[in-house]
Amino acid sequence: MSQEKTAEINLVVSGRYLVTDSQNVLEQENISVAVSKDRIVEIGDNLAVKYPQAQCLSHAHGLIMPGLINTHTHAAMSCFRGLADDLPLMEWLQEHIFPREAQLTSEIVYQSTLLSLCEMIRSGTTSFNDMYLFAKDVARAAAASGVRAWVGEVLYDFPSPNYGELENGFTYTEDLFEQYAGDDLITVTVNPHSVYTCSPSLLERMAAQAEEKQALYHIHLAENQDEVHTCTERYQCSPVQHLETLGLLNERVVAAHGVMVTEEEIKLLVERRVKIAHCPESNMKLASGVAPVPAMLAKELVVGLGTDGSASNNDVDMFGEMNSAAKLHKVDQMDPTVMNATQTLHAATLGGAAVLGAEAAIGTLAVGKKADLIMLDMNQPHLTPVYNPVSHLVYTAGGGDVFHSVINGQVVMENRQITTLDEVAIFTEMKRIGEMIQRMGQ
Amino acid sequence: MSQEKTAEINLVVSGRYLVTDSQNVLEQENISVAVSKDRIVEIGDNLAVKYPQAQCLSHAHGLIMPGLINTHTHAAMSCFRGLADDLPLMEWLQEHIFPREAQLTSEIVYQSTLLSLCEMIRSGTTSFNDMYLFAKDVARAAAASGVRAWVGEVLYDFPSPNYGELENGFTYTEDLFEQYAGDDLITVTVNPHSVYTCSPSLLERMAAQAEEKQALYHIHLAENQDEVHTCTERYQCSPVQHLETLGLLNERVVAAHGVMVTEEEIKLLVERRVKIAHCPESNMKLASGVAPVPAMLAKELVVGLGTDGSASNNDVDMFGEMNSAAKLHKVDQMDPTVMNATQTLHAATLGGAAVLGAEAAIGTLAVGKKADLIMLDMNQPHLTPVYNPVSHLVYTAGGGDVFHSVINGQVVMENRQITTLDEVAIFTEMKRIGEMIQRMGQ
Repeated sequence: MSQEKTAEINLVVSGRYLVTDSQNVLEQENISVAVSKDRIVEIGDNLAVKYPQAQCLSHAHGLIMPGLINTHTHAAMSCFRGLADDLPLMEWLQEHIFPREAQLTSEIVYQSTLLSLCEMIRSGTTSFNDMYLFAKDVARAAAASGVRAWVGEVLYDFPSPNYGELENGFTYTEDLFEQYAGDDLITVTVNPHSVYTCSPSLLERMAAQAEEKQALYHIHLAENQDEVHTCTERYQCSPVQHLETLGLLNERVVAAHGVMVTEEEIKLLVERRVKIAHCPESNMKLASGVAPVPAMLAKELVVGLGTDGSASNNDVDMFGEMNSAAKLHKVDQMDPTVMNATQTLHAATLGGAAVLGAEAAIGTLAVGKKADLIMLDMNQPHLTPVYNPVSHLVYTAGGGDVFHSVINGQVVMENRQITTLDEVAIFTEMKRIGEMIQRMGQ
Repeated sequence: MSQEKTAEINLVVSGRYLVTDSQNVLEQENISVAVSKDRIVEIGDNLAVKYPQAQCLSHAHGLIMPGLINTHTHAAMSCFRGLADDLPLMEWLQEHIFPREAQLTSEIVYQSTLLSLCEMIRSGTTSFNDMYLFAKDVARAAAASGVRAWVGEVLYDFPSPNYGELENGFTYTEDLFEQYAGDDLITVTVNPHSVYTCSPSLLERMAAQAEEKQALYHIHLAENQDEVHTCTERYQCSPVQHLETLGLLNERVVAAHGVMVTEEEIKLLVERRVKIAHCPESNMKLASGVAPVPAMLAKELVVGLGTDGSASNNDVDMFGEMNSAAKLHKVDQMDPTVMNATQTLHAATLGGAAVLGAEAAIGTLAVGKKADLIMLDMNQPHLTPVYNPVSHLVYTAGGGDVFHSVINGQVVMENRQITTLDEVAIFTEMKRIGEMIQRMGQ
């Protein structure tokens, strides 16, 4: 590591606890991580003294950990947060969400994504995997924020409020790939909406595009019983079986939800190297069901956590998602030992990185990895005393406990001030957009 | 109200949203609540201008609402937070909790309760119903904090680390009643631990004490399958049936958990005017099961929310508890319309007040009621935009969003600074106690 150690150190982050990954915690005064450009180059004792020229983010009671990775969201849906809740699924979608989504604009998606990005930064998320309309605007917002993003334009059989006719969707996605080729922070993905909104030929054509681009194939899969019914009616098989029959299950598939999967299908998903984005809070709120995550983990299926969109959560706080995931599976299985704190933190960090095929670059803190890290203030009543920091991260901490955030070596939040985005301006825009969206329903 | 209006106004709280109860929200600039001594005396427009001599807590984007009511907790168990998680229930209790509880002291309970009180104030709780050992120290800590408290010493058939032989438990409780007779903030309760740790004669004798004192009878009831098995083995009936047979179900009973109750038992509990303290997060984490709360509410059983102790939650944040309650019942019932935001906020406010028999004094904001209220800062990304404030309170807000808190007319937190307790000193003590508790296990 001598070459890296002699590189210029831009930043030192120093605290009391260092969670390098879900299984390893150090407690030591002034335990530090040194960053050069976009990478971690040294982890050790009191590096602020060793590198006095570097910017230093320090806290006597700070806990340094890998940034959280949100493997499935629709960031721009923050514009629908709390607009309609507690309704039957089809009434919610058909009367409240779809009519408004049909009127979305490039600008609404851009501003609403910025709003979610403020929330992500404030709650410790450093990477997210987004599926939505107007993906160029999602990517533009992500680029402005400095948050690491996987972004794709959602395609389905019917015309889109963004690109219009389906054929234009492919052109739009091609443009995205071109625009972000080689980008440090933004990776373009291919996003068929689901097996019930995409014909077999659309699913196949998009799979070919994903293969050509070596991109992720991000799809809602086996989210609820309705999807299973529809798929069975049309194709005489389950959603997972349908993709298998089409020959589309492979290592590029990121399957969001995976609620309705059988033991046999879990084995198949493992064989095909499919990854799961588990969204417990959305599955709870929409009454979709409980994904069999303990069974998935027992079979070593790769599982990350996701928040889904803010219309069905209603936030993008991954700390809350960890808390819900760990507790939900215990009561669902009537076994307090399942989905333990270590497994849950793994799903929100390295597990999520593996879902996105980025486990070599992010998800843990180690020399040579990208500098995507956050610091929490542990000197708070709900985090006192500290017997096991990993327990606190899963069962007690909230997004509001994060006070510094670094992504790709850039400080995106310092002392709870976001450095990359103008929150006041975004709030003002979102109030205007909120009024507009409310009027759309009248 | 003229008499009250002319009383001296000590305090005006002014914001943009006023949630007087779970069904009524006003949005208006400078909507204000005026307080004289311990009571709300006026609600109206811009009262800071009308009463310029009063202290004013104001925020342009503030949401004013009733303080949250935690109907079941063991505040001092904050000293065990994160000490042991993800274990089978009996291993957790017998190897980690019970051996340490046997070594608890008056001072540990006092300091640990203070720690929970800091957390309660910071997360918007203004009343709590506590069951634990060393209840005098719980009450002493509550009195120091200014938080409204229902406090009782837990009794069971075996000797207590606090009072020793059972007989002394009655004397201890008598002392408590004497000490806090007529107290504004502290109400003493009678606390049999459960039907599986208290003999029928102990349950009966404590019921007589509760009747004599006109006090609440706060008991763990029907928490999990083990309790049902034990009760069935000993008494050939369920926990609820056991209390019914003993003639102990009445309007003074606050039954914590109520997970294992049948439809028939719900009807019986309604007839007997028993109240339920529903603790979803503890029930999830310990894999106790899901209380049939939607069925309880359909039959108009009085249900409040509780966090249980921090050893099984692992916090006392009632905003998190609301979030979990609303989502858990939807997925459990596979129906997104149950436990809606209004019902959930009701359980955490007026429902909780009714559990404690205090609905005339607290639980809503109205002229003549006690001034127990909190203000949240709504100018934050996860609370933007605002279509329905009640949805945000249940699905999105966290304890950290509370920035002012008033209890019984006293400002206990201003701009997230607790005014009644010295947090730094409490943290220092708790670190020492944490080390001591860790050593107890060695």
